[in-house]
Amino acid sequence: MPQDSDHIVRSFDEDLKKLRDMIVRMGGLAEQQVADSTTALMRRDSNLAQEVLTRDSQIDQLEREIEAYSVRLLALRQPMGADLRFIIAAMKISHDLERIGDYARNGAKRSIVLASLPLTGSLNGFGRMARLVQENLTAAIDALVQDDAEAAKQVWGADEPVDDIYTGIFRELLTHMMEDPRNITAATHLLFVAKNLERIGDHATNIAETVHYAVLGDQLPDERPKSDSSAYTALRPHAD
Amino acid sequence: MPQDSDHIVRSFDEDLKKLRDMIVRMGGLAEQQVADSTTALMRRDSNLAQEVLTRDSQIDQLEREIEAYSVRLLALRQPMGADLRFIIAAMKISHDLERIGDYARNGAKRSIVLASLPLTGSLNGFGRMARLVQENLTAAIDALVQDDAEAAKQVWGADEPVDDIYTGIFRELLTHMMEDPRNITAATHLLFVAKNLERIGDHATNIAETVHYAVLGDQLPDERPKSDSSAYTALRPHAD
Repeated sequence: MPQDSDHIVRSFDEDLKKLRDMIVRMGGLAEQQVADSTTALMRRDSNLAQEVLTRDSQIDQLEREIEAYSVRLLALRQPMGADLRFIIAAMKISHDLERIGDYARNGAKRSIVLASLPLTGSLNGFGRMARLVQENLTAAIDALVQDDAEAAKQVWGADEPVDDIYTGIFRELLTHMMEDPRNITAATHLLFVAKNLERIGDHATNIAETVHYAVLGDQLPDERPKSDSSAYTALRPHAD
Repeated sequence: MPQDSDHIVRSFDEDLKKLRDMIVRMGGLAEQQVADSTTALMRRDSNLAQEVLTRDSQIDQLEREIEAYSVRLLALRQPMGADLRFIIAAMKISHDLERIGDYARNGAKRSIVLASLPLTGSLNGFGRMARLVQENLTAAIDALVQDDAEAAKQVWGADEPVDDIYTGIFRELLTHMMEDPRNITAATHLLFVAKNLERIGDHATNIAETVHYAVLGDQLPDERPKSDSSAYTALRPHAD
């Protein structure tokens, strides 16, 4: 093989490695945003929440860089097969991570309001939910780094406990609201924070699905195991 | 120019036209889902809501078809410049439309529960919000069909009234909940329906942004005009 062609091949591998590193960096940032916005909520720490708000633009910037870099690779390298799928996957995953960042930012905004409101009930469910979605997110990004379709498939099926905690939080908050109207403002914000975490879990699942596609080239079935039934919840007030 | 090359050129144009037609069809379906789920809510029509739920799989299927077709075009045609951007845009837009379909489906689910609950207050705000987001969605897809970056930019800036109505609905529902705990379950579902419509508006904006990028090759600024302040709302109950 002439040296020039060898050089081009190695260089494209380096391009792909750079793209992978960008995704890993973005994934790490998104995880930190989810962790910090949840800590800010639970410790009523508005300074930390403010840091989350400030850092969000880094995630947005990374998404733009990953997309621009991916489009450039598509144009210059005209990749096929697994390389093409990896670049498509990088764009999709960066979009999921950007959405995760947005949900964390929204949670941070709400935690600033919540820090000024009286709270009833425990926030432990939020901590558990955040830990689970972070674990799934980490595992999904790891699966990408390891080219591990089987690990990706496991993450894809691991979102059910997140949905269960969400449904439990939803019912508990509705109960608090019915018990005392002074809980309504705080509980409403908490409903959305819980919904945000549930959506973050969905995006971690999407990332796992995309990794599976990138590695194997096939798509997982349309419906994954899902047990969030809160859209159908009709809890009635105790007293009337 | 030899006839063969001419044939190949025409055939790629046909590929792109087919891709555009798939997006237009998917856009039409998504608009209908938004319209029907809102009508189902306002008329308390659970049969129509059930139709929305059933139709959602068509949208999911179209997203998969558009992605598979786009990846095939990237591999076989190795496009550059505006053609490459258009294919990237098609994938991104189909994802936004799939999300819009999901929000409409979630709204339909909730409208089935809401049809069995007593309602206080008017739903007119929901009708206005749905009309606005549908108009923006139609305009964004039209801008894609017409290759019209200027029209896309107008849609991109037109989401503010949607956010204003959302903030108004949010405050009104909180007030209803505080007045009477029997309103809490219905109002909570309505909060999420309103949030869904607000998110649908965001996705219409994303689509417009993508169209702008596809036509001109540059990106709109990171921050668009936005006035949803509900994440910062701290409404307190009247009485205690």
